[in-house]
Amino acid sequence: MNKQELVFQIRNKKSFLCVGLDSDITKIPKHLLEYEDPIFEFNKQIIEATKGFCIAYKPNIAFYESMGSVGWDTLKKTIDFIPKDIFIIADAKRGDIGNTSRMYADTFFKNMSFDSVTVNPYMGSDSVTPFLEFKDKWVIVLALTSNKGALDFQNLLTSDSNHIFEKVIEISKNWGDDNNMMYVVGATKAKKLIEIRKIIPNHFLLIPGIGAQGGSLQDVVKYGMNSDCGLIVNSSRGIIYAGNQLDFAEKAKEAAQKIQHEMALILNERSF
Amino acid sequence: MNKQELVFQIRNKKSFLCVGLDSDITKIPKHLLEYEDPIFEFNKQIIEATKGFCIAYKPNIAFYESMGSVGWDTLKKTIDFIPKDIFIIADAKRGDIGNTSRMYADTFFKNMSFDSVTVNPYMGSDSVTPFLEFKDKWVIVLALTSNKGALDFQNLLTSDSNHIFEKVIEISKNWGDDNNMMYVVGATKAKKLIEIRKIIPNHFLLIPGIGAQGGSLQDVVKYGMNSDCGLIVNSSRGIIYAGNQLDFAEKAKEAAQKIQHEMALILNERSF
Repeated sequence: MNKQELVFQIRNKKSFLCVGLDSDITKIPKHLLEYEDPIFEFNKQIIEATKGFCIAYKPNIAFYESMGSVGWDTLKKTIDFIPKDIFIIADAKRGDIGNTSRMYADTFFKNMSFDSVTVNPYMGSDSVTPFLEFKDKWVIVLALTSNKGALDFQNLLTSDSNHIFEKVIEISKNWGDDNNMMYVVGATKAKKLIEIRKIIPNHFLLIPGIGAQGGSLQDVVKYGMNSDCGLIVNSSRGIIYAGNQLDFAEKAKEAAQKIQHEMALILNERSF
Repeated sequence: MNKQELVFQIRNKKSFLCVGLDSDITKIPKHLLEYEDPIFEFNKQIIEATKGFCIAYKPNIAFYESMGSVGWDTLKKTIDFIPKDIFIIADAKRGDIGNTSRMYADTFFKNMSFDSVTVNPYMGSDSVTPFLEFKDKWVIVLALTSNKGALDFQNLLTSDSNHIFEKVIEISKNWGDDNNMMYVVGATKAKKLIEIRKIIPNHFLLIPGIGAQGGSLQDVVKYGMNSDCGLIVNSSRGIIYAGNQLDFAEKAKEAAQKIQHEMALILNERSF
């Protein structure tokens, strides 16, 4: 999916919501365990219920990988089930030396039809650029993550008085452009978006951390939104585990719709 | 495997060689393609041929993941085939927020019997510590990698005049100790081992980058060896693709034996 199509979807659905498919066999409703592939059944019903309210899905690969080869089959089936007009993010946080990163790129872009992959920048340019060679595919580089440990290294000051996460953005933005690169910035660090928007005014940002992790949608919009919207805001647990009974999909729908409604108001206010 | 057992294996085999199982379907000998699982057959023969000369195997997970669910089965079979007295490294370079890193830890330590996983430190403490909760298992943190892009961020200077890779080691070493943490330092940056040994004199280091990538074994030993040996030196392509005909396993054996011979001389010189 290219940038124009992504922006069209946001306008069309009045939403910039991403639903995180962090589907965990120990947390899904018990009645699904009777199915041959309970996680796929869960994902299918969640997708059916929420697809009208979100513009992206983001399976975290750890949840599938931890189930071994069966998990990879479930992941593939899930990706194939998602409608083609919805942006799909492999939250894989991969990154390796050049020839190995290329294999990860093949995994997510050739073998499965993801639109984008989250990539860890620590190993530098050759760990990221192999993902940029695919037309209409995206790299989403970790910049400032939403977790507690994020400050251990990402927030260190460099000798030229920048934070590491700022240097990561400043240097890596030259490896591609705002048509094939995005950045992860945690909603729990919303005020940092002011500085980040000075470096990359036009890039899309993937924002995890609203809901369970405590970030605020209003703050993210205030400091991070640009004229293309420029935001994909993720919620995982707050939507997919909104219920855990027979009506879990209905509960997920309500949770997604509630966020989408808030987003529609924001977009309307800005005549988007 | 604990540290004492690892050091015993090094003394016993007079080797600190790790063989990287970066097994690629496009590079293995053509005659293996007739087997039901060509990569497993390749790995099996490589392991049979080299197990007397190395103390560790390191499959890079990208190579298996890129084959989908079949690749995960091949990986599991390979791990089960490796003799129990050989240290096994999942070169996965994973890392995520705490509850997700725990799933990656389960993948490699519970579902498969790896001894260690390489982990990317960018996301900080909670991305690393879940791996430290398993007895006799190891986290191998990326510090200074062997690739070209390594210098983009790892070598940036911080405001207190350290390089980022030094801060990564200095801060993260407190999350565990030299019985459950190692660090990756590329052989192509051997002189940096002088500074690194000042920060972590006792930790084991995983050293990629000799052979195809151009690093020197003699330099690595000169600057990085400690009284426990403290080094696991990896070679992948130089061993597993030493030949690509019917006698590929014999060629791999010769290549591994040649490095082991050089290592034995070094260890003997130091009365290890």
